[in-house]
Amino acid sequence: MRGVVMYAPGDVRVEEREDPRILAPTDAILRLSATCVCGSDLWPWRGIDRVTRPTPMGHEYVGVVEQVGADVRNVKVGDFVVGSFFASDNTCEICLAGYQSRCIHAYPMGREGTQAELLRVPLADGTLVATPGMPDADLIPSFLAASDVLGTGWFAAVAAEVGPGKTVAVVGDGAVGLLGVLAAKQLGAERIIAMSRHADRQALAVEFGATDIVTERGDDGVAKVKELTGGLGAHSVIEAVGTQESIMQAIRATRPGGHVGYVGVLHDVQLPGEELFFSGVHLHGGPAPVRQYLPELIDLIWNRTIDPGKVFDLTLPLDQAAEGYRAMDERRAIKVLLQP
Amino acid sequence: MRGVVMYAPGDVRVEEREDPRILAPTDAILRLSATCVCGSDLWPWRGIDRVTRPTPMGHEYVGVVEQVGADVRNVKVGDFVVGSFFASDNTCEICLAGYQSRCIHAYPMGREGTQAELLRVPLADGTLVATPGMPDADLIPSFLAASDVLGTGWFAAVAAEVGPGKTVAVVGDGAVGLLGVLAAKQLGAERIIAMSRHADRQALAVEFGATDIVTERGDDGVAKVKELTGGLGAHSVIEAVGTQESIMQAIRATRPGGHVGYVGVLHDVQLPGEELFFSGVHLHGGPAPVRQYLPELIDLIWNRTIDPGKVFDLTLPLDQAAEGYRAMDERRAIKVLLQP
Repeated sequence: MRGVVMYAPGDVRVEEREDPRILAPTDAILRLSATCVCGSDLWPWRGIDRVTRPTPMGHEYVGVVEQVGADVRNVKVGDFVVGSFFASDNTCEICLAGYQSRCIHAYPMGREGTQAELLRVPLADGTLVATPGMPDADLIPSFLAASDVLGTGWFAAVAAEVGPGKTVAVVGDGAVGLLGVLAAKQLGAERIIAMSRHADRQALAVEFGATDIVTERGDDGVAKVKELTGGLGAHSVIEAVGTQESIMQAIRATRPGGHVGYVGVLHDVQLPGEELFFSGVHLHGGPAPVRQYLPELIDLIWNRTIDPGKVFDLTLPLDQAAEGYRAMDERRAIKVLLQP
Repeated sequence: MRGVVMYAPGDVRVEEREDPRILAPTDAILRLSATCVCGSDLWPWRGIDRVTRPTPMGHEYVGVVEQVGADVRNVKVGDFVVGSFFASDNTCEICLAGYQSRCIHAYPMGREGTQAELLRVPLADGTLVATPGMPDADLIPSFLAASDVLGTGWFAAVAAEVGPGKTVAVVGDGAVGLLGVLAAKQLGAERIIAMSRHADRQALAVEFGATDIVTERGDDGVAKVKELTGGLGAHSVIEAVGTQESIMQAIRATRPGGHVGYVGVLHDVQLPGEELFFSGVHLHGGPAPVRQYLPELIDLIWNRTIDPGKVFDLTLPLDQAAEGYRAMDERRAIKVLLQP
């Protein structure tokens, strides 16, 4: 099969990889309908995360079940399925508490590399959720979004305890931040402040439910959020970047007793203890347990209540993956869908 | 009046201070029945927090109302009252959300110095809660504990989402940690692991409801907690110390999706972002909004359901305050009550 492999920063190639096969009776093999490039794929592309050897890329996926292991019960050949970027058994104590991304048997799908034609999914029963039927083609980008960025934005909103009557601020205008806006709207937030300085992303944020746009960053951005919230700060803040500046901006924009939901993988970040202590905020985040939300998200997409697929503003054939990485790196695209 | 003043690390003196008087119509003046030395008073005593000028000391107090300003309605002359270590209006949006220690008009009682005979309490209506009547003498230490260490341990347990069926670990065996054990018991925890290497404190922890004692610290302590919890870590961890080692011990002893409630003032602490991210825990803490819990705690003490006053294992006249500081610094006493 064809698949994307990163050789070094700035060097991804689409080449022939060995077809995946069933290794355990709980595995399934999918023929992928769509895959995509994630903001986190840009860390090694930019040389911030090291690339020590040729590495299959990608962890987001939707597709049709082509083969199942002997023990697979919940999905069958021919099903259209969505899965999280972490495989999970969905039966252990951690999964049952809703933290499937930290399942005691968690397996990162990035290790398989989903930017490819075929994909082995371990723990298929716990990981994959079938849609009610074969989706129309225009729904596929939205189901693909559910595999990571929508589920991650949704978790960030839940972690930030978004709810009716609350004011939410969103730090980060990438796909996750924008879908955090969408999640906040669905979860009933009264006011949603999107922090963005890019006109195209601001427009999508407003379409997804943002009521206010703040273009300032850092301390100026914090001051602006406080100005919009009677000097107190937002009840809930979604952090979807992962830098020192962005997480501090999120903490400082939150009122005492408020909640920060952070999903940007923290890189070279040290949180100052004393400031955090006196901030009085709640902090929660980490790798999103997307599996928890899949049934609900699939339902919202199938019924066309939400259209998260709009974050894909560039679609390319898999063979042009390198151009997809470049377009996202240069911010010419919010998120790039790849067609195997 | 007589009051405690710190001149330098290791140098506290009891000397004549000016009697407090009503400065605002919302003030009350108390004649203190008891006050005490806090673990946080040891930071400047040990030279870790700087002492730049003679500083009145203390922020914990119970006493009898001696005088009220013209606007005070909720307490009257002759009432026995308990107040938090932060004065608060108890009417602003932050107070109504339960974060009185971060009230928009919050006033730290340490600025008045409660290790004294008399005390001015600003925002008396929002800050003070009267007991149902004049308490028996043996209840006074427990009411005094409610003013800070009990309320703080209680908040830590609430912040750690302690509840029925849960396993709780408590890092720190000072008064706050021990009362965190008591709070966890009252809040219905199934199993309470106290982390302590001092026999007297272990005994009190067990009396307050601890089911297990772990004497190991740091990574060894974490390994022991994991061993006791099927390899997963505790559901809830109370952090009542405030050092880099203790907060990391707390985070690492918590299972993914679990909750850390931290109330030890973080000193020289930097939380590593990437480890925190992948831990998947909830973090919440800060200066405890003790005022929120006072009605409930007063009730539990008045009805003799709980006996938090047991943390006071040394009682001294106010004039011997210096000996009280020394006894706590040298760990000869858990907590020292001072009688004005």
